[in-house]
Amino acid sequence: MKRFAVGMLVLGAAWASVAHAAQPRCEVRTPMQRGLEYESVEVRPDRTILFRLCAPQAQGARVVSGDMAPAIPPGFDGKPSGLTMARDADDYWTATTPTPLAPGTYSFAFEIGGATMPDPQGTIFGRKDRGVHSIVEVPGPSADFFAYDPAVPHGRVSTVEYRSPSLGMMRRAQVYTPPGYEGRDAKNYPVLYLVHGATDSDDSWVAKGHAPYILDNLIAAGKAQPMIVVMPFGHTPARDGVARMENTDFGADFTTTLIPYIDRHYRTIPNAGHRAMAGLSMGGAHTLQFGLPRPDLFGSVGIFSIGLLDDDQMARYIATNDARLKQRARAKSFVYFAMGRDDFIYKRVAPTLAVMDRYGIRYQYHETGGGHDWPNWRDYLRDFVPLLFR
Amino acid sequence: MKRFAVGMLVLGAAWASVAHAAQPRCEVRTPMQRGLEYESVEVRPDRTILFRLCAPQAQGARVVSGDMAPAIPPGFDGKPSGLTMARDADDYWTATTPTPLAPGTYSFAFEIGGATMPDPQGTIFGRKDRGVHSIVEVPGPSADFFAYDPAVPHGRVSTVEYRSPSLGMMRRAQVYTPPGYEGRDAKNYPVLYLVHGATDSDDSWVAKGHAPYILDNLIAAGKAQPMIVVMPFGHTPARDGVARMENTDFGADFTTTLIPYIDRHYRTIPNAGHRAMAGLSMGGAHTLQFGLPRPDLFGSVGIFSIGLLDDDQMARYIATNDARLKQRARAKSFVYFAMGRDDFIYKRVAPTLAVMDRYGIRYQYHETGGGHDWPNWRDYLRDFVPLLFR
Repeated sequence: MKRFAVGMLVLGAAWASVAHAAQPRCEVRTPMQRGLEYESVEVRPDRTILFRLCAPQAQGARVVSGDMAPAIPPGFDGKPSGLTMARDADDYWTATTPTPLAPGTYSFAFEIGGATMPDPQGTIFGRKDRGVHSIVEVPGPSADFFAYDPAVPHGRVSTVEYRSPSLGMMRRAQVYTPPGYEGRDAKNYPVLYLVHGATDSDDSWVAKGHAPYILDNLIAAGKAQPMIVVMPFGHTPARDGVARMENTDFGADFTTTLIPYIDRHYRTIPNAGHRAMAGLSMGGAHTLQFGLPRPDLFGSVGIFSIGLLDDDQMARYIATNDARLKQRARAKSFVYFAMGRDDFIYKRVAPTLAVMDRYGIRYQYHETGGGHDWPNWRDYLRDFVPLLFR
Repeated sequence: MKRFAVGMLVLGAAWASVAHAAQPRCEVRTPMQRGLEYESVEVRPDRTILFRLCAPQAQGARVVSGDMAPAIPPGFDGKPSGLTMARDADDYWTATTPTPLAPGTYSFAFEIGGATMPDPQGTIFGRKDRGVHSIVEVPGPSADFFAYDPAVPHGRVSTVEYRSPSLGMMRRAQVYTPPGYEGRDAKNYPVLYLVHGATDSDDSWVAKGHAPYILDNLIAAGKAQPMIVVMPFGHTPARDGVARMENTDFGADFTTTLIPYIDRHYRTIPNAGHRAMAGLSMGGAHTLQFGLPRPDLFGSVGIFSIGLLDDDQMARYIATNDARLKQRARAKSFVYFAMGRDDFIYKRVAPTLAVMDRYGIRYQYHETGGGHDWPNWRDYLRDFVPLLFR
């Protein structure tokens, strides 16, 4: 097997347990000592998943997930969510997805008593805005482009913590450096700033999006320029009475603190021709607000699965950014915009295109299948990155 | 306030909530959408901590922790563990530590129905061997040496994933690179390999030990050489019938795969005089087994809170390592050994010293107060690192 997904620890365990190794009986052990060990997630050959949880005193348990529909109902629009677990003969709560999952990377949590928790037996996790979810990988050829490939060189992901004067708090970002960067390579690199969506974190493009593996694979195939990818934390503290699209808190920190910090601490090429910004959903809104009108900062811009809501928002956007949108139209510039036809905010396409057309901004618009989800966002990143810094 | 602990997001929130801001009423919301937000951890001015959890359908809840005694009983030796939480008027489960905590970094989890979970409202976490705990910081002057100081330059922590042929699986390590490494600095550096204890992970010296901040602060004060610190994952899959001290699985991966990988991908000085190994508890056992007998690999060795168990283990250790222990005695070498007088494995000191004395290995033995815990391990690291690579 040449390729395999990240998390061989879990996958190896899952594959091994397809043979249905006996589990120790579920019982409470002293929680702070090395507790009971059991296989909590079995990805079966038919790509259904069996979940197992030891919580012997619970009155009930469920598996919940926002990205495993239809196998696990996400519970949008007031519909039921999750899979109800049943107690087995060894006192575990178990549930199996009624339908298989496509190859991919998924997040899930267990719910007991109304609180959600990551898998206490898990080894792969993703941080949310608040809290942590568990990650499960379902391997398969269609997931190869975002899977860890042991045959190619790998970049590195490091955590940057910095003090933000504008926000008055510590902030965190993840930084991907391309293969060779940490070695005796003394080269300078272009930078892509890549922002996550609402409820997610700086970790999500790594844990869920597998942006580092997408870059590793594209760079190894000669399809993308080696580049640094900076993944900021997109949420800012709540401010009463200011809608998110008009909240400039993210942008102030991003443009006056984070970007100069990265240019000071990494071997960047610090000019607009070698700097790009992209984001999905809320991160795409950040890109519309702080990237598209800044041709002086970003030569290239990618907007994934978001857009201007309506005439009202269009008018405010134009009023705020008029001079800079004219500069964007005149600049040597690359604008990428992508939306799935089944996205629940598909209607935002038309107002967004209307604004760009009004200013004569050149763009590539990619309308795809699918909805507001990671399969699309990973595809968009794979398609966008090769077009950068050419 | 010149210094502040890592995690201002949480601390800021905690300090703000000392004013007892009203919490929204606890109720279940669609778990995969942006859920209820509330302050889950309040570190009070008297350094007691109030914990708050929304789990409205639970029959009960507890806070558990292995490192907050006596404020939270750890439950060793069959004694009760944790703090029982009570339902408040807004339907939250709450508990307050009956005694204050010393300034420091602590981990905790909530327990419902016999399963443990990190704080679903948390933003700082630490990975265990399996599962995740929440982290809480109690600031104070005695915690300054391992706290993030915005006034000093900071190194970076990156995640390395590599395939281990000897273990037949993917492995993970954390790598600290000193301030300036990612910039236009082209220097080569010595390397310290630093291993965690049982039930912990490659992440624990970062999340709990704050090794990166300890290094940042020592380097900024001119007390330590700038160095790379590699934190491997110390656990290997269970093997029936082979005691941990005699299990060579960790060592095979460590010496034949990880160290060459680091020397290939980072700007190291790849010789024993510029390479050290240290570890705590199980990681100290790894160091006794794979570091002390390898003067050809490690010029310096640090053994924290562990040692050889008894005559039987001494005899096996000598039989396995005789020639190499003689080499260690002849080598230009630095051996650091530290143990707390209240450590439950204090009796391991004598057999360990006896073996080193028998071979005439020169060492520094530091007997301290305290027990088998992070306050000691952070102190030992702070004391050990300045002695390296001089």
